[in-house]
Amino acid sequence: MSHRILNFSAGPAILPEPVLAEAADGVREINGSGMSLLEVSHRGKDYEAIHADAESRLLKTLSLNPEEYATLFLQGGASQQFAMLAQNFLKPGVSADYIVSGDWGAKALSEAKFYGDAREAASSKGEKYSELPRSFTRTPGARYVHITTNNTIEGTEYFDLPETGETPLVADTSSDFLALRRDYSKFAFLYGGAQKNVGPAGVVLAVARKSFLAEANTDIPKIYSYKTFLDNRSLYNTPPTFAIYVVGLVLKWIESEGGLEAIEVRNKRKAAILYNALDELTPFYGPTVTNKSDRSLMNVTWRLADESLEPELLAEAKKAGMDGLKGHRSVGGFRASIYNAFPEKGVQALADLLRDFAGRKG
Amino acid sequence: MSHRILNFSAGPAILPEPVLAEAADGVREINGSGMSLLEVSHRGKDYEAIHADAESRLLKTLSLNPEEYATLFLQGGASQQFAMLAQNFLKPGVSADYIVSGDWGAKALSEAKFYGDAREAASSKGEKYSELPRSFTRTPGARYVHITTNNTIEGTEYFDLPETGETPLVADTSSDFLALRRDYSKFAFLYGGAQKNVGPAGVVLAVARKSFLAEANTDIPKIYSYKTFLDNRSLYNTPPTFAIYVVGLVLKWIESEGGLEAIEVRNKRKAAILYNALDELTPFYGPTVTNKSDRSLMNVTWRLADESLEPELLAEAKKAGMDGLKGHRSVGGFRASIYNAFPEKGVQALADLLRDFAGRKG
Repeated sequence: MSHRILNFSAGPAILPEPVLAEAADGVREINGSGMSLLEVSHRGKDYEAIHADAESRLLKTLSLNPEEYATLFLQGGASQQFAMLAQNFLKPGVSADYIVSGDWGAKALSEAKFYGDAREAASSKGEKYSELPRSFTRTPGARYVHITTNNTIEGTEYFDLPETGETPLVADTSSDFLALRRDYSKFAFLYGGAQKNVGPAGVVLAVARKSFLAEANTDIPKIYSYKTFLDNRSLYNTPPTFAIYVVGLVLKWIESEGGLEAIEVRNKRKAAILYNALDELTPFYGPTVTNKSDRSLMNVTWRLADESLEPELLAEAKKAGMDGLKGHRSVGGFRASIYNAFPEKGVQALADLLRDFAGRKG
Repeated sequence: MSHRILNFSAGPAILPEPVLAEAADGVREINGSGMSLLEVSHRGKDYEAIHADAESRLLKTLSLNPEEYATLFLQGGASQQFAMLAQNFLKPGVSADYIVSGDWGAKALSEAKFYGDAREAASSKGEKYSELPRSFTRTPGARYVHITTNNTIEGTEYFDLPETGETPLVADTSSDFLALRRDYSKFAFLYGGAQKNVGPAGVVLAVARKSFLAEANTDIPKIYSYKTFLDNRSLYNTPPTFAIYVVGLVLKWIESEGGLEAIEVRNKRKAAILYNALDELTPFYGPTVTNKSDRSLMNVTWRLADESLEPELLAEAKKAGMDGLKGHRSVGGFRASIYNAFPEKGVQALADLLRDFAGRKG
């Protein structure tokens, strides 16, 4: 690529350059097979090796035991899991607790209500989701507690997971998947669209505790049953082979960079560069997440005190080769999505622009 | 590619070489944007143009009026549509008629039963699906009649569509999508996984008569509602952008080849080469579809009278650079999938091998 753009998009989003180069090669031909990756059977040896590698590598990256956990490759985005999750575990009269910390969590709750007694156990909507709920109301006998680990739109992120006792913890991890270390064994089930931090659009990665899936509903269509995916290693029907291939390349890249430990260190350093600039330049800029311990490493959001200057800053950024900085259409302002593959020097360039712009306009 | 294999796989399957080359370029960088296609936002201008073009080009290719019909880009394979279709149109006490002409049709019926009164209106299971059902039992008030236009596993295909009167005709067209001309306005709804004839795995193309969708159920989760996809032009959540991009390239390729008219002529010529060889060499070979008017242009299936010779033929084919000829694991024997992009000279090479093998072993 001649002039690589600084791509701050929230998703689909920036991917590592070596991954893109290898993915392009795979589209031309895979393993010297005389076929493109797009053309090989999902039951043939070339694809089977890719599938099995991505399955096991994901668990390894998250330090999860393959005896206890399994990888599932699903489709339909996290949005479909909002429905499928409830379809697999709820029924009329069976409850689940939803901690709603953003728009996506609210959607997850809304879809779950079609299947059972899904309850809002906490919400920070009153605070415009600018912070995480501090506590939640537990429903006795709830099948699970659902959280969104990172709120792409609002820019908050969980660093301490809520304590759920015996109740399984389930999470939509779409926008901070593989971004930091966590005790992932605290989750009974986690899922996320790949297109924010782990690959292209078109595949959902899920990691399931097998004992949790063992208790899932069985009286549902086969294609909506997580057990179908578990029992058939996500090969009950044709999986999105190319997307899974790219996810596998990203997992290898993470390993080559030093695993989640190294990735987390870098992500913290990158986020600090931006938050420090915003805090230093307050009140010219106003970071939308004021509770510092809730600030996302992935999506940094802010407004300008003088909102009329926002189009001007956006235009200057664009001119400097920075794309995708506009805040989500539902909230406005700015959002810098600085996923794993986003280069530190790009974050520094944005911080420099923020300082320069404030100096000239403040 | 150095040595292109003759890829007879049933799906994912062979794609046109110029499409693969352009797709690989798009993975490197799209439109000189400084970003890979995999990285651009699904709401940005680069992708938006691709999306809109594929939407309208599909209707144009099928000679459908965009005032009456709409393209939907769905996920989860045709297998998910087996459930979603019924979810959108059935309810307990509301019926639909399924003409079961193969294993996939049987699965469609089985999933639909979770939602309403889905009935087997006809079946050729007794004939091991070696022919299409000749008639079917109509249920008064049925919401739709469902068929599978091409049976990938068994090798049959509809050339005359069943007469359904006022009842909407719905079809799984996965394995002969864009393979031949039909009066596509006879369908109220058709859907198919792209990975057999139209693109990579990971996207389902659906074409819907808008007036049919207007009567769909509304009390279902948003992500399962076809109306959600219609109202949001398949951008309610992140679509599988890369798969849709490749589908767009395939649609352009079809147009450059002369549209469905030219494609159909070529597909008929290719299929005739194989069926002629098999008929000529009967009883050494036994084409599994004996009713010639039901024979698929896409998937040609046969057995050897002496089944013990089958591994030998398969090995000789492999040695000659022919891959994917093994019949579906549920039926055995041979299957040559000769989709749009499969070259005529490759079909001829297989026919030559069949003649040569029979000459030596017969």
